[in-house]
Amino acid sequence: MAAGLKFVTSNEGKWFEVSRLLSSMGIECEWVRARLTEVQSDDLTEIARTSAIEAYGKFGGRVAVEDAGLFVEALRGFPGPYSSYVHRTIGIEGLLKLMSGVEDRRAHFLSAVGFADSDGNVVVFTGRADGRIADAPRGSSGFGFDPVFVPEGETRTFAEMTVDEKNLFSHRAKAFRSLTEHLLRRR
Amino acid sequence: MAAGLKFVTSNEGKWFEVSRLLSSMGIECEWVRARLTEVQSDDLTEIARTSAIEAYGKFGGRVAVEDAGLFVEALRGFPGPYSSYVHRTIGIEGLLKLMSGVEDRRAHFLSAVGFADSDGNVVVFTGRADGRIADAPRGSSGFGFDPVFVPEGETRTFAEMTVDEKNLFSHRAKAFRSLTEHLLRRR
Repeated sequence: MAAGLKFVTSNEGKWFEVSRLLSSMGIECEWVRARLTEVQSDDLTEIARTSAIEAYGKFGGRVAVEDAGLFVEALRGFPGPYSSYVHRTIGIEGLLKLMSGVEDRRAHFLSAVGFADSDGNVVVFTGRADGRIADAPRGSSGFGFDPVFVPEGETRTFAEMTVDEKNLFSHRAKAFRSLTEHLLRRR
Repeated sequence: MAAGLKFVTSNEGKWFEVSRLLSSMGIECEWVRARLTEVQSDDLTEIARTSAIEAYGKFGGRVAVEDAGLFVEALRGFPGPYSSYVHRTIGIEGLLKLMSGVEDRRAHFLSAVGFADSDGNVVVFTGRADGRIADAPRGSSGFGFDPVFVPEGETRTFAEMTVDEKNLFSHRAKAFRSLTEHLLRRR
C-alpha cells in the first residue's frame, strides 16, 4: 500500500465512496470527521484549495478534502457550489419543480479534490460526469442529488447503482484517480 | 457630521441605499468598491463577521460590510445566505416557479452589518424585515429580489418604492441604524 492520507468530511456517504475508491487503488485512507470552512465562490477549485489549506493547518499533511456540485445547464449552473445547501432546503422536489416543462435536461457533476502534502503544498484535482436530470427521483443509494442524475450512456440514476458501479465513472472517482496517480508518481 | 467610515461592496445598488441612509443620519461614508471573501454558512452574522475582519486587514479601520438574504418560510429559508447566487442563476422567475401553488407566502429579509473599528474590534448588527412573496414581479428600483418582496403593512414591493421609502423599514436600514447608534454613542 502507498503511504496513507487523511480525508476530511462531515458527510458519511462521501466518506463511504472515497474509502472504497482509494482502497481499490491501494491507498490507505483515514476518515477525519470534521466540517471545514467553505468560501462562497462559483469556482469549486477555489473552494477546495482554501479548504485544503485549512485542513492542513488543523490536521497536518497528506490531507485531502473534496467539494462537489451539480450544474444544470438550463438553470445557468444552479445549484452548483451550493448544491448541499439547496438539497437541504428546496431538495430534489424543488429542483424537479424548477425543471418542470424544461426540455433541456443536460447537467453535470463536478468534483474538486484539494490535497496538501506534508510540507503544506496544495494541489487541486478535478473530475466531471456529464448526464441529465431525470423526470422523477429513482433509487436510494448515494446522497444529495444522486436520485435525479442519469450519467451519459446509462439509463439508471447514480442512486440506482452500487457504490462500486458509481465509482466506475463518477466525477468524484475521476478526481480521486488523478490524485492517486499524483501520489503514486511521487512515491 | 460624525467621523466617517468606509463601506465595502461590489454592489452599486447596495452602496446607493447605504450612502443615502448614512448621510441622512449624519455619518460620512466612503465607497470602497471591492469584492470580499464570503464564507459558506447558514448564519449571516458569521459571514459578515469574517468579511469585516478581511476588510479591516485590507482597508484598515472604521470599515463596514453588509450581507443580506431573503428567507422564504415555505422553502425552509431558501435562498437565504445564497440569495445573490440564486438571483444570478434561477433568478426571480425561478423563485416564483418554486412558489407556484404555494399558499404560505411568508418571507423575511435579513441584513447583517459587520463593523471593524480602528483597533480591529468587530461588532455585527442585524436587521429584519418581514413580508411576503408577491405573485409576480413589480417595480424596477432596488436590486435582487426586491421586485417580489412586499413588506408587512404595504401593498407595494420594495422595487416599487423610492430608496428613501425602502429605507424607512428595510432590514438593511434597521441594521445600519443600530451601527449608527453605536458610532454616535462612542463619539
